[in-house]
Amino acid sequence: MPIKIEAGDLLKSIQYPDDLRKLPKDKLFQVCKELREFLIHTVSVNGGHFAASLGVVELTVALHYVFNTPQDQIVWDVGHQAYGHKILTGRRDDFHTNRVYKGISGFPKRKESPYDTFGVGHSSTSISAALGMAEALKYQHDKRKVVAVIGDGSLTGGIAFEALNNMGVSDANALVILNDNCMSIDPNVGGLKEYLTDITTSPTYNRFRDEIWNLLGNFSKLGKSAQDLASKVEGALKGALLKESNLFESLGIRYFGPVDGHDINHLVEVLTDLKNISGPKILHIVTVKGKGFALAEKDQTKWHAPGLFDKVTGEIYKSPSSTPKPPKYQDVFGKTIIELAEKNEKIMGITPAMPSGCSLKFMMESMTERAFDVGICEQHAVTFAAGLATQGLVPFCNIYSSFMQRAYDQVIHDVALQNLHVVFCLDRGGLAGADGATHHGTFDLAYFRCIPNMVVAAPMDEPELRNMMYTFQLAKNAFPSSIRYPRGEGVTIDWQTPFVEIPIGKGRKIADGKEVAILTIGHVGNFVTEARHILSKQNIVPAHYDLRFVKPLDEALLREVFTNYDKVITVEDGCLMGGMGSAVLEFMTDNGFQAQVKRLGVPDRFIDHGSQEQLWAECNYDAQAIVQAVMAFSKEKAVV
Amino acid sequence: MPIKIEAGDLLKSIQYPDDLRKLPKDKLFQVCKELREFLIHTVSVNGGHFAASLGVVELTVALHYVFNTPQDQIVWDVGHQAYGHKILTGRRDDFHTNRVYKGISGFPKRKESPYDTFGVGHSSTSISAALGMAEALKYQHDKRKVVAVIGDGSLTGGIAFEALNNMGVSDANALVILNDNCMSIDPNVGGLKEYLTDITTSPTYNRFRDEIWNLLGNFSKLGKSAQDLASKVEGALKGALLKESNLFESLGIRYFGPVDGHDINHLVEVLTDLKNISGPKILHIVTVKGKGFALAEKDQTKWHAPGLFDKVTGEIYKSPSSTPKPPKYQDVFGKTIIELAEKNEKIMGITPAMPSGCSLKFMMESMTERAFDVGICEQHAVTFAAGLATQGLVPFCNIYSSFMQRAYDQVIHDVALQNLHVVFCLDRGGLAGADGATHHGTFDLAYFRCIPNMVVAAPMDEPELRNMMYTFQLAKNAFPSSIRYPRGEGVTIDWQTPFVEIPIGKGRKIADGKEVAILTIGHVGNFVTEARHILSKQNIVPAHYDLRFVKPLDEALLREVFTNYDKVITVEDGCLMGGMGSAVLEFMTDNGFQAQVKRLGVPDRFIDHGSQEQLWAECNYDAQAIVQAVMAFSKEKAVV
Repeated sequence: MPIKIEAGDLLKSIQYPDDLRKLPKDKLFQVCKELREFLIHTVSVNGGHFAASLGVVELTVALHYVFNTPQDQIVWDVGHQAYGHKILTGRRDDFHTNRVYKGISGFPKRKESPYDTFGVGHSSTSISAALGMAEALKYQHDKRKVVAVIGDGSLTGGIAFEALNNMGVSDANALVILNDNCMSIDPNVGGLKEYLTDITTSPTYNRFRDEIWNLLGNFSKLGKSAQDLASKVEGALKGALLKESNLFESLGIRYFGPVDGHDINHLVEVLTDLKNISGPKILHIVTVKGKGFALAEKDQTKWHAPGLFDKVTGEIYKSPSSTPKPPKYQDVFGKTIIELAEKNEKIMGITPAMPSGCSLKFMMESMTERAFDVGICEQHAVTFAAGLATQGLVPFCNIYSSFMQRAYDQVIHDVALQNLHVVFCLDRGGLAGADGATHHGTFDLAYFRCIPNMVVAAPMDEPELRNMMYTFQLAKNAFPSSIRYPRGEGVTIDWQTPFVEIPIGKGRKIADGKEVAILTIGHVGNFVTEARHILSKQNIVPAHYDLRFVKPLDEALLREVFTNYDKVITVEDGCLMGGMGSAVLEFMTDNGFQAQVKRLGVPDRFIDHGSQEQLWAECNYDAQAIVQAVMAFSKEKAVV
Repeated sequence: MPIKIEAGDLLKSIQYPDDLRKLPKDKLFQVCKELREFLIHTVSVNGGHFAASLGVVELTVALHYVFNTPQDQIVWDVGHQAYGHKILTGRRDDFHTNRVYKGISGFPKRKESPYDTFGVGHSSTSISAALGMAEALKYQHDKRKVVAVIGDGSLTGGIAFEALNNMGVSDANALVILNDNCMSIDPNVGGLKEYLTDITTSPTYNRFRDEIWNLLGNFSKLGKSAQDLASKVEGALKGALLKESNLFESLGIRYFGPVDGHDINHLVEVLTDLKNISGPKILHIVTVKGKGFALAEKDQTKWHAPGLFDKVTGEIYKSPSSTPKPPKYQDVFGKTIIELAEKNEKIMGITPAMPSGCSLKFMMESMTERAFDVGICEQHAVTFAAGLATQGLVPFCNIYSSFMQRAYDQVIHDVALQNLHVVFCLDRGGLAGADGATHHGTFDLAYFRCIPNMVVAAPMDEPELRNMMYTFQLAKNAFPSSIRYPRGEGVTIDWQTPFVEIPIGKGRKIADGKEVAILTIGHVGNFVTEARHILSKQNIVPAHYDLRFVKPLDEALLREVFTNYDKVITVEDGCLMGGMGSAVLEFMTDNGFQAQVKRLGVPDRFIDHGSQEQLWAECNYDAQAIVQAVMAFSKEKAVV
């Protein structure tokens, strides 16, 4: 049960930003303090994203103080950092239900509040959305303001650059706040980050400019000729320095900053000034992710979403366990790729900014030259992998299923069309849990299986994941392949089994049975094991087949199934429309078989957040739902 | 029949770049001249892309002269400009078959030649691919070089920026050549273009730098104090100007240029120098699209791919036609959106860099404030549309089907998940013809129908396209919808019919029939009309239903079909895996119907180029193929 936390006195008096805006400016420091305490306390006992919101406490307070929200509109990029925003906009009393089933969402969400102007979860969308809003307001002669808040990590995503490029020739009133903390979830990488660091360290852009102007001023003391010459230098410099010497100004966007993002008074002043400057503009603020919680400031990746912890000592609680537990699929991937890479020098690893999340960090540590964190940029990650593959290497490109949607064209156009040897590992395939609708990986089986040349597989357990990784890196399997597996723990304690090649497109029979056959793909096969156990008590014994491949389908196995069974249940942790079950129907009809087929999987709607168990149950494909489906079938008469 | 053109004497002596490299440098000017003549002559009689290749004649010759291709590898972005490259790399004798069925491809293609190091067609991929190649070579201690050639238009695509960001922290040997001609197919747009124009016009980046250095030098004449002060200014400036005053240097990539891209001798010198500079670097060249053909230089959009023309007078041939012809679907879209926007002030139009191709140009001309060309950036286009929609507007976002793959996540995450009122118009849905595999829009029905909240429709003819556009902009239909239609001409002469609302998810019966029912989606319905005409001579009369919506399906119509027919044929201009036919199978099985279903559509492989008619025939879903399918069914005994 989520635990509700008492807010400080001042924070308690703020239900909505209107209340905040009634306070005198000198109270804001205290608001920030109480907001930070409330955040730390709540997350420490209920879990959730942590460090990002701590870093923008002052910014959040300043934005709602200066701007007339929700008439003025704030778009938070990604949304990890929007907890403070939620607390100040009517959701303090519900905040302890954050990320809990039926509770509030961990991300801004339009359905939840008018203050959440644009739903987020995936990165780098805020500038596009804000520019669209600002153009719409301009067209409607509406003077309200739009502000996008984007981290330097998110700025590496291509859509953010596309939006900046468009913004540079717009005259709409959009303010972009660049929240520069040098971090994605892991440390931010790339040329842009280096550049921002250059701006904010010695010599700063502004300090540098001041220095030059001061120096040039000194020439006036040296007489007319020197003064004339100096003013010529100044003239030549001025346009260029204002216009060209800053990346954002290069793109036609006025740049302000950098300013200290933790100085609430200065932030309020700056935002008040900027509010009245029209046109596109960017404010660069420098913040510390995890600000105000010393341990989080020191290890920002660990404290991105630490789980439960002691807010005084900083001890992160581990669930006590005397018995050994199965590993996370993530770690199976992370450790297996190293095992394989030790034997096959062609293997390379790629992650777009998720080295910790997907566990490629192990390889990045032990095989520096062969594992790449390319930044938040799924598109580049895939085409970069294609480039590696053209030179005979075998890249494993690990991308969360829902983020792979960002690189769909690159998979089709750069990898599959050229039939290149790239192994895609789709982490977080299926319902992903507390992150909710934006992060569920429910579409991949449908959107990948229609791509020619692709092999689409999903393991039922850890040894299968290992064996698929082993199989797909073999030289004889030099085609594009994908392996999707769920978030979290598997089912096998002794998972580090010897590698066994899996024939491409070959499923397996898990158990014989009577009357009903159940076909599964991926980890939901384990739900069937559980369901069969329950059903066995009533002497109902369905057969169970693990397809392993959605593409190519195991036609021999399917012939066996449709020859012997006229009642078939398909189960998948993915969308029913166009997914594995749909592929089975295509096979059945194309080959003249007829059977009753009941397809279990994610229905045609977006699924909110909750634990995976809660969501599997809600979507009717957990063990209990499978039991029900089999029993419903068993009660019916056979057709034909 | 394609007409083969005689090459000039010098060009004739060059089969491969090896031959070119044997020539003395002073012959290159003549090579360029003959190459340009050969290009103009061949395209004038055989058609194809034109202006882009003319703009890079000198660059193409210089690259193959300086670099040891194909050991050194050139990646052409998009590939419109690679005709010269093809001619110099073994394909001069086949060049007249460019874009012809079974002939050579209009784009670089790995299967076609080892000189085509990376297949292209969609824009902005070259830097990612080249960086991947360069990293792979570095890892393998291979000294070969990699060069990406990218236009300033392509550089606006987000993946290009993602790649630059990654390149800025790489030490791999990749050279990016920025071919700056201020154009996409239409004039390039955005802040970046303005910036590049600034660099290349007064004061140029280099000239500006020289000017400052010269001015500072002059202080030495004014005595020691002035000199000291000047050297301080110089010190303060130097680091900054070198490091920060250029967008590419900002990202950590060495910048060279701009240089004249039509000065073959200078290009050869510069490339020779750059070849030996290690690390990531960018060479900025300025070229004129259409260079050497005066009319093309003047109207570059018209001459991007002009069709056949008189190479002397520049007259573009129109196919002679005494009778009126049906319009292109593109123009139906372009003119209908204006009609609708005149009545509904909420309607806005968006295109990512295809105002001519999709005919949004009409609206851009007549309703300047309401139609946006946002540049080559499908992702931003979609999320920008989402932003507009949050403010109550109704954006029509027109994107080619195959390019929509670039914005798949934005459609899911920013539009559908928030159930925003955006109307997607998917141009070039289905097999697109001569542009080939990269441009066929075959996956959209499969990848869109699995997205919750989406309405997915396709019109059978022009009035249906108009009526769908009309229907989806109505306030009561404030959800995401998509309309896909093919490249090229429709079937209706008097197409400007009054608007009629189509009930959402409602198909229509086109013709009653016996034994067999044919279900179609989109323009292939007209193939069935033709097939029924042929079949009627043998007294075979299949029924014909136009589904109009792949989602939601017309369940009443499908019940009627499956109740009355046990032989059903589905026809779609899209992939069989997961497409419309697959949706019909889902309905059939979910609702307990049984029938023999034969699905016609694009098989599970990538389809090469050719005319649409040739490809429809190859894929077995043109009128003749439908006739065959019906006859095969009629010969069989009915089941059950």
